[in-house]
Amino acid sequence: MKIHDIPLVTPEEDEVRLAVKAIGLNRAEISFRKGNYLESPKFPSRLGYEAAGVVDAIGSGVSGIKIGDLVSTIPAFSMGKYGVYGESAIVPATAVAKYPESLSATEGAALWMQYLTAFGALIHHGDLKPHHRVLITAASSSVGLAAIQIAKWAGAMVIAVTRSNEKVEFLQKNGADHVVATDNEGLPDRIMEITSGQGVNLVFDPIGGPLLSQLAEVAAKQAMIIEYGTLSTSPTPFPLFGALGKGLVIRGYTLFEITQDPEKLARAKQFVYRGVESGRLRPIIDKTFPLGQIQEAHQYMESNQQKGKIIVLV
Amino acid sequence: MKIHDIPLVTPEEDEVRLAVKAIGLNRAEISFRKGNYLESPKFPSRLGYEAAGVVDAIGSGVSGIKIGDLVSTIPAFSMGKYGVYGESAIVPATAVAKYPESLSATEGAALWMQYLTAFGALIHHGDLKPHHRVLITAASSSVGLAAIQIAKWAGAMVIAVTRSNEKVEFLQKNGADHVVATDNEGLPDRIMEITSGQGVNLVFDPIGGPLLSQLAEVAAKQAMIIEYGTLSTSPTPFPLFGALGKGLVIRGYTLFEITQDPEKLARAKQFVYRGVESGRLRPIIDKTFPLGQIQEAHQYMESNQQKGKIIVLV
Repeated sequence: MKIHDIPLVTPEEDEVRLAVKAIGLNRAEISFRKGNYLESPKFPSRLGYEAAGVVDAIGSGVSGIKIGDLVSTIPAFSMGKYGVYGESAIVPATAVAKYPESLSATEGAALWMQYLTAFGALIHHGDLKPHHRVLITAASSSVGLAAIQIAKWAGAMVIAVTRSNEKVEFLQKNGADHVVATDNEGLPDRIMEITSGQGVNLVFDPIGGPLLSQLAEVAAKQAMIIEYGTLSTSPTPFPLFGALGKGLVIRGYTLFEITQDPEKLARAKQFVYRGVESGRLRPIIDKTFPLGQIQEAHQYMESNQQKGKIIVLV
Repeated sequence: MKIHDIPLVTPEEDEVRLAVKAIGLNRAEISFRKGNYLESPKFPSRLGYEAAGVVDAIGSGVSGIKIGDLVSTIPAFSMGKYGVYGESAIVPATAVAKYPESLSATEGAALWMQYLTAFGALIHHGDLKPHHRVLITAASSSVGLAAIQIAKWAGAMVIAVTRSNEKVEFLQKNGADHVVATDNEGLPDRIMEITSGQGVNLVFDPIGGPLLSQLAEVAAKQAMIIEYGTLSTSPTPFPLFGALGKGLVIRGYTLFEITQDPEKLARAKQFVYRGVESGRLRPIIDKTFPLGQIQEAHQYMESNQQKGKIIVLV
């Protein structure tokens, strides 16, 4: 990943251009850079899904957006084609939305990926209800924290999973009813203890690999396990006996199911606006980097130290 | 598996006793005998899920059933406790139902397991519609054939999968729009050819193992793969990338989801009665054995030669 000076591009039909103020980093961009993502880069390739900024040019056929609008991007495009890392970014007009005025540009760049991803899984697919027990792995990632906020808003019991003791207190402060630190305690035993042997109704997991079998073990009857990432580099055995015996649903999921369907996206956006207005949803920013240090920002994300969103300021 | 003479048992509260006329064999019973089933035998153990016969004794608290009724059993009980292989069988009163008068006892013993299993998967979970393309593996098993009949009734396009050429014509005659014989043709290529590259919307598979990855490969976006058995003895890798990229739902399923829920069971039974009355559903009997040859009947099932239900006559 390198920074190049290139001429300013003019937006084409149905596109807008942003003067970028803040860039939100996502794991997907690290996977994309490493050639380990759903989409592969064709060099020279842009990258990046999330940015907040000011609209400074508008292509033909665009309505509802004007120059000067403060917007942030919704990941509903090819990262290789429209990547938003940089001082200026072109994106499809359907992939920008105003962020609430109560948020800073930094928070605006941390809005859509995390809440739309968690909304689609927990509310749209998971139909989360107050009596549900939900298990959230990689809980201190931005999407994990967004999922905790949404699950608490829905009234559910939240069990957050993290590796070491370092993030336990942080996760408790940010809404988790229970935190399991897998370096120190066995996941299945601890979950069954917390749930009095009943298991969890919904699992939201970006890791996969051998963990999936443990997740099936702690799943209640008729539970849904939503897999939304490929962080594990090991193969993922399918827990066939557990799935049959409990009638489990194991669902592969990406937020594109939401962002590429105008009706679902509209519903999801309203949910996020309502959540921010009511104070139930608020992006948690871990650390900011200047654009010149975007490589360091990627390295920092890969180190897994962060608790919340990493933002690059332009 | 051995035949023993034991004294006639009197039904207890909420139980009925059948003078068995016909026994329907199921793969589950072979798995149970081999200790490879969801439930394990405690010796001496009975076995068997399906029988048709005459009610000849009724326990206390039972209503709606009288001595002399012709009924067959619905698999909604522990096989080890209530197994129906034999001349006489005790079962919970909720686990018997009259079979349609147009059917013989042989057909009555082939009714509930296959149609309830296929109904729960294709109609209850799969919500099968006329524009759907459905893939049915192990298609010449009794459940596979029941699924073909139900899918055709729902108006869907049916692709049946079998191993050798031997059963191709039989499956075509019994409703399959297309048959893929995997000994002779590659499953993914052939399915994509049949569906003009669109893939299938619903998969109904009792095999699992490495086949699951091929099934994910031929699944359309947002497709559901229903796994309802463990016939493969190899591990089953979870197709994580395919599941994420296409938003696949992979669901473990057994008919107990239907038979242990009174409301779902009532709906499913009405569906089966309506199907038999209208002539859309009719059990296909492959071969009958006398009770003294029940071991041979099991061996025959394990040989995979059958096309439809194997029945043991008492």
